[in-house]
Amino acid sequence: MTWSHVDNKWPTDGLSFGADYNPEQWDRSVWREDMKLMLEAGVNLVSLGIFSWGLLEVADGEYDWTWFDEIVDLLEENGIAIDLATPTAAPPGWLLHAHPEMLVVDHDGVKHWPGARLGWCPSSPVFREHSLRIVRALADRYGARDHVVMWHVSNELGGGNGHCYCDVSAAAFRRWLRDKYTSLDALNAAWNSAFWGHTYRDFEHVLPPRGNDSKNPSLVLDFDRFSSDELLQQYLAERTVLKEIAPGLPVTTNFMVGAEQDAVDYPRWSPYMDILANDHYTRSSDPLPQQDVAFSGDRMRALTTDRRPWMLLEHSTSAVNWQPRNRAKRAGEAVRNSLSHVAHGADGILFFQWRASRGGAEQFHSAMVPHAGRDTVVFAAVKELGAHLRALAPVQGSRVRQARAAILFDDEAGWAVQKGVKPNNELSYGRPLRDWHRALWERNIGVDVVSPWDDFSGYDTLIAANLFVVSDQNAARIAHFAESGGTLIVTPNSGIVDTDNQVRLGGYPGAFREVLGAWSEEIHPLQVDERFTLDTGWTGTDWTEHVHADSADVLARYVGGSLDGAPAVTSRTFPSGGRAIYVSAGLDSGSVAALARSVVPSIGEPDLPGDVEMLVRESDTEAFTFFINHGSADVSVPGTGVEMLTDTDIVDFLDVPGGTVRVLRRPRT
Amino acid sequence: MTWSHVDNKWPTDGLSFGADYNPEQWDRSVWREDMKLMLEAGVNLVSLGIFSWGLLEVADGEYDWTWFDEIVDLLEENGIAIDLATPTAAPPGWLLHAHPEMLVVDHDGVKHWPGARLGWCPSSPVFREHSLRIVRALADRYGARDHVVMWHVSNELGGGNGHCYCDVSAAAFRRWLRDKYTSLDALNAAWNSAFWGHTYRDFEHVLPPRGNDSKNPSLVLDFDRFSSDELLQQYLAERTVLKEIAPGLPVTTNFMVGAEQDAVDYPRWSPYMDILANDHYTRSSDPLPQQDVAFSGDRMRALTTDRRPWMLLEHSTSAVNWQPRNRAKRAGEAVRNSLSHVAHGADGILFFQWRASRGGAEQFHSAMVPHAGRDTVVFAAVKELGAHLRALAPVQGSRVRQARAAILFDDEAGWAVQKGVKPNNELSYGRPLRDWHRALWERNIGVDVVSPWDDFSGYDTLIAANLFVVSDQNAARIAHFAESGGTLIVTPNSGIVDTDNQVRLGGYPGAFREVLGAWSEEIHPLQVDERFTLDTGWTGTDWTEHVHADSADVLARYVGGSLDGAPAVTSRTFPSGGRAIYVSAGLDSGSVAALARSVVPSIGEPDLPGDVEMLVRESDTEAFTFFINHGSADVSVPGTGVEMLTDTDIVDFLDVPGGTVRVLRRPRT
Amino acid sequence: MTWSHVDNKWPTDGLSFGADYNPEQWDRSVWREDMKLMLEAGVNLVSLGIFSWGLLEVADGEYDWTWFDEIVDLLEENGIAIDLATPTAAPPGWLLHAHPEMLVVDHDGVKHWPGARLGWCPSSPVFREHSLRIVRALADRYGARDHVVMWHVSNELGGGNGHCYCDVSAAAFRRWLRDKYTSLDALNAAWNSAFWGHTYRDFEHVLPPRGNDSKNPSLVLDFDRFSSDELLQQYLAERTVLKEIAPGLPVTTNFMVGAEQDAVDYPRWSPYMDILANDHYTRSSDPLPQQDVAFSGDRMRALTTDRRPWMLLEHSTSAVNWQPRNRAKRAGEAVRNSLSHVAHGADGILFFQWRASRGGAEQFHSAMVPHAGRDTVVFAAVKELGAHLRALAPVQGSRVRQARAAILFDDEAGWAVQKGVKPNNELSYGRPLRDWHRALWERNIGVDVVSPWDDFSGYDTLIAANLFVVSDQNAARIAHFAESGGTLIVTPNSGIVDTDNQVRLGGYPGAFREVLGAWSEEIHPLQVDERFTLDTGWTGTDWTEHVHADSADVLARYVGGSLDGAPAVTSRTFPSGGRAIYVSAGLDSGSVAALARSVVPSIGEPDLPGDVEMLVRESDTEAFTFFINHGSADVSVPGTGVEMLTDTDIVDFLDVPGGTVRVLRRPRT
Repeated sequence: MTWSHVDNKWPTDGLSFGADYNPEQWDRSVWREDMKLMLEAGVNLVSLGIFSWGLLEVADGEYDWTWFDEIVDLLEENGIAIDLATPTAAPPGWLLHAHPEMLVVDHDGVKHWPGARLGWCPSSPVFREHSLRIVRALADRYGARDHVVMWHVSNELGGGNGHCYCDVSAAAFRRWLRDKYTSLDALNAAWNSAFWGHTYRDFEHVLPPRGNDSKNPSLVLDFDRFSSDELLQQYLAERTVLKEIAPGLPVTTNFMVGAEQDAVDYPRWSPYMDILANDHYTRSSDPLPQQDVAFSGDRMRALTTDRRPWMLLEHSTSAVNWQPRNRAKRAGEAVRNSLSHVAHGADGILFFQWRASRGGAEQFHSAMVPHAGRDTVVFAAVKELGAHLRALAPVQGSRVRQARAAILFDDEAGWAVQKGVKPNNELSYGRPLRDWHRALWERNIGVDVVSPWDDFSGYDTLIAANLFVVSDQNAARIAHFAESGGTLIVTPNSGIVDTDNQVRLGGYPGAFREVLGAWSEEIHPLQVDERFTLDTGWTGTDWTEHVHADSADVLARYVGGSLDGAPAVTSRTFPSGGRAIYVSAGLDSGSVAALARSVVPSIGEPDLPGDVEMLVRESDTEAFTFFINHGSADVSVPGTGVEMLTDTDIVDFLDVPGGTVRVLRRPRT
Repeated sequence: MTWSHVDNKWPTDGLSFGADYNPEQWDRSVWREDMKLMLEAGVNLVSLGIFSWGLLEVADGEYDWTWFDEIVDLLEENGIAIDLATPTAAPPGWLLHAHPEMLVVDHDGVKHWPGARLGWCPSSPVFREHSLRIVRALADRYGARDHVVMWHVSNELGGGNGHCYCDVSAAAFRRWLRDKYTSLDALNAAWNSAFWGHTYRDFEHVLPPRGNDSKNPSLVLDFDRFSSDELLQQYLAERTVLKEIAPGLPVTTNFMVGAEQDAVDYPRWSPYMDILANDHYTRSSDPLPQQDVAFSGDRMRALTTDRRPWMLLEHSTSAVNWQPRNRAKRAGEAVRNSLSHVAHGADGILFFQWRASRGGAEQFHSAMVPHAGRDTVVFAAVKELGAHLRALAPVQGSRVRQARAAILFDDEAGWAVQKGVKPNNELSYGRPLRDWHRALWERNIGVDVVSPWDDFSGYDTLIAANLFVVSDQNAARIAHFAESGGTLIVTPNSGIVDTDNQVRLGGYPGAFREVLGAWSEEIHPLQVDERFTLDTGWTGTDWTEHVHADSADVLARYVGGSLDGAPAVTSRTFPSGGRAIYVSAGLDSGSVAALARSVVPSIGEPDLPGDVEMLVRESDTEAFTFFINHGSADVSVPGTGVEMLTDTDIVDFLDVPGGTVRVLRRPRT
Repeated sequence: MTWSHVDNKWPTDGLSFGADYNPEQWDRSVWREDMKLMLEAGVNLVSLGIFSWGLLEVADGEYDWTWFDEIVDLLEENGIAIDLATPTAAPPGWLLHAHPEMLVVDHDGVKHWPGARLGWCPSSPVFREHSLRIVRALADRYGARDHVVMWHVSNELGGGNGHCYCDVSAAAFRRWLRDKYTSLDALNAAWNSAFWGHTYRDFEHVLPPRGNDSKNPSLVLDFDRFSSDELLQQYLAERTVLKEIAPGLPVTTNFMVGAEQDAVDYPRWSPYMDILANDHYTRSSDPLPQQDVAFSGDRMRALTTDRRPWMLLEHSTSAVNWQPRNRAKRAGEAVRNSLSHVAHGADGILFFQWRASRGGAEQFHSAMVPHAGRDTVVFAAVKELGAHLRALAPVQGSRVRQARAAILFDDEAGWAVQKGVKPNNELSYGRPLRDWHRALWERNIGVDVVSPWDDFSGYDTLIAANLFVVSDQNAARIAHFAESGGTLIVTPNSGIVDTDNQVRLGGYPGAFREVLGAWSEEIHPLQVDERFTLDTGWTGTDWTEHVHADSADVLARYVGGSLDGAPAVTSRTFPSGGRAIYVSAGLDSGSVAALARSVVPSIGEPDLPGDVEMLVRESDTEAFTFFINHGSADVSVPGTGVEMLTDTDIVDFLDVPGGTVRVLRRPRT
């Protein structure tokens, strides 16, 4: 399944450091200052040209390369490498004016007018033709330039055009369905379309799930798959052009990987990336943003082959602008976030964007050079980070040590559990994944966030949380994991439906009922103000089930309520020593942590003081141990080697001041 | 006004028991198991074919009866009667594809695309023609079959197509207005259209109330009436076809009767039903769902002629799927709900649906056979219920004893009070109706929920709550009720406007000011966090008025606030002994109960222990007394006779264990 | 800049008193009663014909003047003056039916169907032509009538058609942009349109900001300006017709001036009004509605030339109908509100409307004659108010005494700060303006709410709150104010962008950084549940900044949090004695008041007991001192003269009973 991202050398010497660079917003006098400040900060890579289509192709087939030549020259002169973007995220005004039919139409038939980004229909042949033409022209002109070291295809594909419901998309959806199902009988069976009498008599009668009324969930899931596939086709078409012209350069696009289901199906896209790249933004409302950074890194790493390094193409030096209230980052937070990404496997740290815009829709988004200029906390942190990354150059190419535990993540599961009407319609896909991740992360137990089709060997713990959709084959592999000695943990809403989004009959969770030795006959969602308590003292909200522990032990039972005395958490032990644990109730995160302590005991993971996160990257010969102190108290941790950021020899104990990061380098033993 | 529903014999021997049956979703192997389980549960009636149009008319004018013949045969072989549905709730995909102009258009001009149910414009001539053709074909083929015992026209008419704002609907609305008003002058006067200069000069200038801006409330109310009438015309057109082909079979459609205003005007539809039928679902957020069951039954019974039995065509064995968080029913709740419907006059108890769907939009709606199969609490309750209904066969045909009290319900009032801008726009129509119903229901005082045009003789108490719209004639009849000896209770927002939705001048509540001997000069709505207190200790929220008790006694006055000392509750006593009580303030339900105790004293109603609800059904010779214990404590109630569910002779005292129902049969004395 | 509103004599003898009068909604019998009640109440002016277009022009070019002649005669017979409205707020049904293209289209392309008011596109040439024709016809017929004393152009322009996104509007917007920018280069530079690659190559490619996605803020602000200008053009076109026919009559339109940004740019409209006129409604959720009245009056007065009298054309006797819960006014509140408007400079007090409508969309809006008729609290208050206004006739023409302090208000700032994505997107424009106004108002320190381009001479204090957009020139004038001896107070979000809505670089608040001697490098918005505390004990929410007090003193610093110890409030003192104070944090209103007490000490303003508001109006020879007791306690204030409402000689002390107003007349000293 993997394609090519294993074969490329890293685009920069040492770790990459930089930002999206949008010089077209500024006078040439600013460009000179930019170069000076980039060198001051240690920038060695910029993503260039992401929004430049309209400035390069100034009318249909008419190009103005002058200014771009100039900036490419300038970057080269200053020794800064270029991650060259195809500018297809932002079609020019003249193209949208000539072809308004390429604009995205939402599920209510409302056209999304120009003014933002990515407003094009992924199935539009007009867009496809024009976009490949500018990609070809750009690659022809710059593909052989020395400092162009990688391709950045479009930008955050799916972020603004994840779904289009126009007639062109409808026709493309029908083609996709014909390819998938071949016959209408197969489609009608897969969709259980006899329900509400929706049996199709002609592929031409199929429509996208337009409107707000409840729809057939099987159709909706297929439309989600189709929508992801259509955008992937755009990526692949651009990639083909780029590979034809500049076969030696790695091609990628920037994902947006977090704990919730993705805009498009990144795990199924990742084989087509030469270097895996991510954009990651923490949220102001997140009480533990550093764990979101960790989760994202634990996913990114597992999306690569053999846990190879990946690239962080965007994050923020401080506040973003798209939330209700955009928190500024705290002292040291941007540095800690950045080095945490490195610790989780990133070999490049870039920001959106180099210089904060004066105007435009993101004028209040932070950048490496803020509105207030260079004499600021933000730019000082940028310089500090640049120095750290230079000091960490030896880390480049090393890999994160194998994790013990794996959490399963699948966009199809996330999409399916979040759409349609469910027993409890107020839950997120990612919360239980975050809770279980946190329970291990807080104890410095490594976690990989993997796909259900991945190889589970090497893990001792496997967590299936909200894994709503699962194939028979993957369900069997997951069951086998427990039967053959692993600890399998299954939480509510896992294994409920098959890949057609149809319920597995005979008791929940259908796909895992047998391995768990327990089954649920009915889901008992709680109202928003209701809580439950278990006989272990654990508590929770949102979700309970009426479980029968046929061949499993009961770890916790309900106390009070309509399920008084019934099992809430069960555990089946196999002769192999493997266990299959069913956590059928919506435990609070503190109770998840308590349960995790009992079913996933520590094996040599250090019990570090305070809020210190520890990760190890390893090359063939050396180990790099990252200590990230998220707390404000200074701590001391056991360790010996050379601290890379302070260039200090450490014997036995390493001081990690509050809010800082320390990296210990030592030979592998 | 009544038509035919008094003349039919009941479609099953004894009470009816069953569900919507949708075998088209399942393999034939499942059909055989269905028959076995239906017999095991005691099912004797199923609603068949509700969503089968597209599976019967597989292309325009082309039919496939094979599978339907087979299932009809199978049901007949197993002695199960068929409530045969016209499948017009779900037009086939080929028809919608050929005629997208029949899709409903909402008030913003957004077309409702296929994917749900009832998405057709009630005024569409294309839909009318095609729907009557399939009705005729179905009736021709199955109307004479032995086991087809009644017709189920379409499904929950108005549930998805209560209003359509398309141009075809606009033209139909104009025709309806021409019929109603004859002249533009009459329309302009009725609508006070000179306001904001909207005077109409041509019927062709009238539009449906499109858009979100505030509209003329008189136009809006007429559009609501028109919308209900258009759907009634569809019902009547189908009924005419069915009666022509199978004159001996009763025809009905399933209402959705609760405490809030209806999707369409059921009280004005009910004369055209041969058997009155209801769908009733409790809500997860309802703190007292058993009272909602009672309210619904008290309405249904009063919609029939002479309190004849009616049919519950749909309710749920456990959770539904269309709420934010769908509560599962508690132990015994489905049985208690079902027998409560019987106690309130239902002679048939059916569920949606027989077998829980694997796919489709309602895959997480409970059913008689849940996903987990037959070895479940749900199916055990189904079997228990089947046994109870068989034991209660002698109840069939008996009628609920005449109630003392009546609550007035009018959809026009509900529609009018809920739309447009009002002094307080955050109130529901049904809440005060539920509060007053509850105040009597908790004391086992029988209530009929009647229409303003009904005969009030036989009642001693009449409650007009939120009766916003009332005609002069009905207002006079209501006043006469008090003047001639009854106790009339009027709550806020009653009698405010005439049937044109224009305010009755001279002080609120205009229609009842005179009979009340009190009037209000101004409404003083409370803000969401404000409360009031009266000198009786009663409290409330939301609504206060500046009342003058000209010829009434004051039962309670405000303490504090801007109305300090002013009357809140008044009572006028007539020489006949009749009383007219004005409850001008938004009392809390506890205060409503306290007031009700003083103005509606008990007359021999038993003071039962715990949460026991008691109702009596009577035949010519026997009385059947239902005791429904909604609490968990076992209680003992006075009574003598034969307990039907346990087949036990009872002398003096009957034990009613917590959560159970008991029915005492004895000769009428 | 001022045009003509300085030249007209006041349209009534003494103060004006009346309402919108809509006799077309009533029978002629009611008209006679209206005259009687108007005389009883002392009404001397009514706004007539606001919604009469469709009743006057009954078909295209066909007029029916009969009924209007009659009502004009009747008013003249009764000596009531007429503020004659052009009926262009409500185009007739026949016109909308013939030209649906004139209907407003919203940003999602949804047409606003007829049914409300002002639903016409301001750029529609069809509307313009028809509207000017009826204006001409009306003026021809009634412009010379004795009792027609002023023109009321349309009604609340912008209230329902503030923005239209239709293709006609788009073309007009492009024309407006060509006029403003001349070249595309200028437009692209002003909009920083290179961001997201939106550079325009043709004016024809520019679209209104359609859709919900985030847009270029510079484009959005220009569209807001354009939208205001288009409506102003309609006003001016009507005005031109009226002036041509009846040059001697004053022309105005009713503004809706409050503390939030306006529907259209009133400060830039006001020069074209002969008499400035306002509609003002308090809000049920406002804890201090009397201060909103004061704020509105302080703005209105400052919008005139030399603080000349203005007219209140609409407010309410009690509840409105367009809020979720519409509070009725408390005892005396309507009288206090009315006389407060007079105290703030109004020489006329009119209501919407004379008689409460029976039907139509505003049937539950209060009026001078309520539904309950004349024997009501409301009508009694109306009569009391009429008597008061007659007693206050000598006040007419006097002017409010010069205020010490000025608060800057600019709609462009309000629009810009409220749209687009900002650091904190949950703040209102008006709240800090209200807080600073309140801090002075509670101490009876006079405030004028002025425009940034106004002359600041005569003020000792100038407050720039949320003055997000400011021109270089005005910023310099504001700085000069402090440098030359005034006290300048600047709050967050002021001076952030230039008039292109592009950020001023180099540190916030760019326009005022230099005068403040302090600058902020980053904004640190607080989450909704966060608070901050300063070392002065002051507290606040929502907003903090990382400030450097380079050449300013620190008045308050943060205690705790990520800005612990950093400056929150700074003050720079100039040799002139002037001060520039930067309040960089979102202080609670109590803390604003505390800060205001220290930086704006009282200078002879009386310290009145209770909640007494005091204002002084002055003619050349006399002073009229208004005491408005908003509290319930009776108080006594120092004063000598004649109390005008009770016609009592006062020596030394004046009693002001709770809830009442008293006005002391005395010669100017």
